[in-house]
Amino acid sequence: MSIRPLYDRVVVRRNAEEETTAGGILLPGSAKEKPNQGEIIAVGEGKVLDSGDIRPLAVKVGDTVVFGQYAGSNTIEIDGEELIIMGESEIFAVVD
Amino acid sequence: MSIRPLYDRVVVRRNAEEETTAGGILLPGSAKEKPNQGEIIAVGEGKVLDSGDIRPLAVKVGDTVVFGQYAGSNTIEIDGEELIIMGESEIFAVVD
Amino acid sequence: MSIRPLYDRVVVRRNAEEETTAGGILLPGSAKEKPNQGEIIAVGEGKVLDSGDIRPLAVKVGDTVVFGQYAGSNTIEIDGEELIIMGESEIFAVVD
Amino acid sequence: MSIRPLYDRVVVRRNAEEETTAGGILLPGSAKEKPNQGEIIAVGEGKVLDSGDIRPLAVKVGDTVVFGQYAGSNTIEIDGEELIIMGESEIFAVVD
Amino acid sequence: MSIRPLYDRVVVRRNAEEETTAGGILLPGSAKEKPNQGEIIAVGEGKVLDSGDIRPLAVKVGDTVVFGQYAGSNTIEIDGEELIIMGESEIFAVVD
Amino acid sequence: MSIRPLYDRVVVRRNAEEETTAGGILLPGSAKEKPNQGEIIAVGEGKVLDSGDIRPLAVKVGDTVVFGQYAGSNTIEIDGEELIIMGESEIFAVVD
Amino acid sequence: MSIRPLYDRVVVRRNAEEETTAGGILLPGSAKEKPNQGEIIAVGEGKVLDSGDIRPLAVKVGDTVVFGQYAGSNTIEIDGEELIIMGESEIFAVVD
Repeated sequence: MSIRPLYDRVVVRRNAEEETTAGGILLPGSAKEKPNQGEIIAVGEGKVLDSGDIRPLAVKVGDTVVFGQYAGSNTIEIDGEELIIMGESEIFAVVD
Repeated sequence: MSIRPLYDRVVVRRNAEEETTAGGILLPGSAKEKPNQGEIIAVGEGKVLDSGDIRPLAVKVGDTVVFGQYAGSNTIEIDGEELIIMGESEIFAVVD
Repeated sequence: MSIRPLYDRVVVRRNAEEETTAGGILLPGSAKEKPNQGEIIAVGEGKVLDSGDIRPLAVKVGDTVVFGQYAGSNTIEIDGEELIIMGESEIFAVVD
Repeated sequence: MSIRPLYDRVVVRRNAEEETTAGGILLPGSAKEKPNQGEIIAVGEGKVLDSGDIRPLAVKVGDTVVFGQYAGSNTIEIDGEELIIMGESEIFAVVD
Repeated sequence: MSIRPLYDRVVVRRNAEEETTAGGILLPGSAKEKPNQGEIIAVGEGKVLDSGDIRPLAVKVGDTVVFGQYAGSNTIEIDGEELIIMGESEIFAVVD
Repeated sequence: MSIRPLYDRVVVRRNAEEETTAGGILLPGSAKEKPNQGEIIAVGEGKVLDSGDIRPLAVKVGDTVVFGQYAGSNTIEIDGEELIIMGESEIFAVVD
Repeated sequence: MSIRPLYDRVVVRRNAEEETTAGGILLPGSAKEKPNQGEIIAVGEGKVLDSGDIRPLAVKVGDTVVFGQYAGSNTIEIDGEELIIMGESEIFAVVD
């Protein structure tokens, strides 16, 4: 199954959670913090301007991105995997 | 009876609810989660721009779409079937 | 008495309430749900654009329309009949 | 004393309250509902557009208008008479 | 000391409070209602439009104006006199 | 140390507090009201318009200004002195 | 690891906290106030205008900036160091 986000929306695969703390202690499920980083899986066509024209997004498939704390609430299951759908405005930065 | 949504609104037939869990257990009514996916049944003419021009929608009849959790609150019964009316902005993505 | 709505407002005559349920049981007054459908009785000149120009409405007198749950709060009595005044943006669709 | 409303504001003389019910019963003061109808006494020059131009109003002195439930809160006493000042957007329709 | 309001702001001298009721009874301080009328003492250069141009105000020094109930909260003391500073949008009308 | 405010922001030195009341009574610290007047110490380049152009501010260094009651909450210490940073829209007027 | 903020966002390294008060008293951790100053580490391409064009930011890498009290809530760890991501509108001024 493939997914095509509308307009300025993107689909993100959240990075795997850290299973151990920096000091090497194995974390139980509830203590694991969900990382706000992930990989762009799909991008929309672009943002609609007031003129009706489309402005392409600044992120592309494969980018590793940092996003806001509340950006991960809309999820979709694709081929058994949970992915996040968010607006590009919820993405803060691309990291390399 | 036919229905013609205004402007940027669309009519969606929500996908049938899953009657069994992934593990094959039959779910009682109240435990069933309404899927946020459905099929586009009708689309409006388009979104009105500041200039007064109309911009056609990005979805079309027959598309399978994912929509927001709160998008399903406005329903209409057409020929005995409950359908959802929502704005295109409540649609996150088209899935194939 | 005639009524001329301003700009993008319309006057709607709400459809008569269903007196019996689908199964044929007569409903007492308080159990009757007000249908969110009605007929357009009068339409305004159109919506004012940022440019000051007027964009005519997409609905016309005689259309049967579906409107939002909270659209019916402004009423006016014309010749002894209660009618609803709403903005066109509160109308979801035209049904035939 | 004369009054000149600014921009898109209008001055309205509220219609006299109905002293008797439809069935002819005389109403005590507190049970009388203030009618949301009135006559336009004065109109502003028009609404300022984004361009800075003025768009004249759609109502004129002498029109009988229906206005929103909360439109009557700003009053002014002119020559001993209480009049209402409201924005044109609070007027729903003109009735004849 | 002189005062020059910025942009669309104006300085207003509130009319003297009525010391007696219509029936001639002298009012104690706390029962006196502050009148929402006053005289324009100074006006700003005008409102900044989206284009960056300035649109001159519709009121001028010397005008007697009616203003909203909550418009009088910003005061300044000039030469021992308390004056009100408000935006022109808080002025409803000019009275003669 | 020098400070350069961004865009439509300005830096203001609040006027010294009055140590005595009009009647000459020395005020204890907690009874002193902070005056909402001050001197402009630095101004930003101007306000960004929708077009992307910059519109220079209406106030300049050295002006004595009156500002809103809630405008003084963002402070910065420059060379041991506490200064206020605010947007030009929080300034009501220039006084001479 | 490098970071590229999107559009009008910037990455800021917060200045080190003062360990002693002005009077030379060593502060315990909880009494230390986080300074709202920092150095710009990375800047986005610019702010998207209504026209779709990009307007470059007014701050550049290396600038020392003052930012709002609530601007520091979005952090990212880069090479073991905690950095802040904020919009340029949260920056009040550049200090030298």
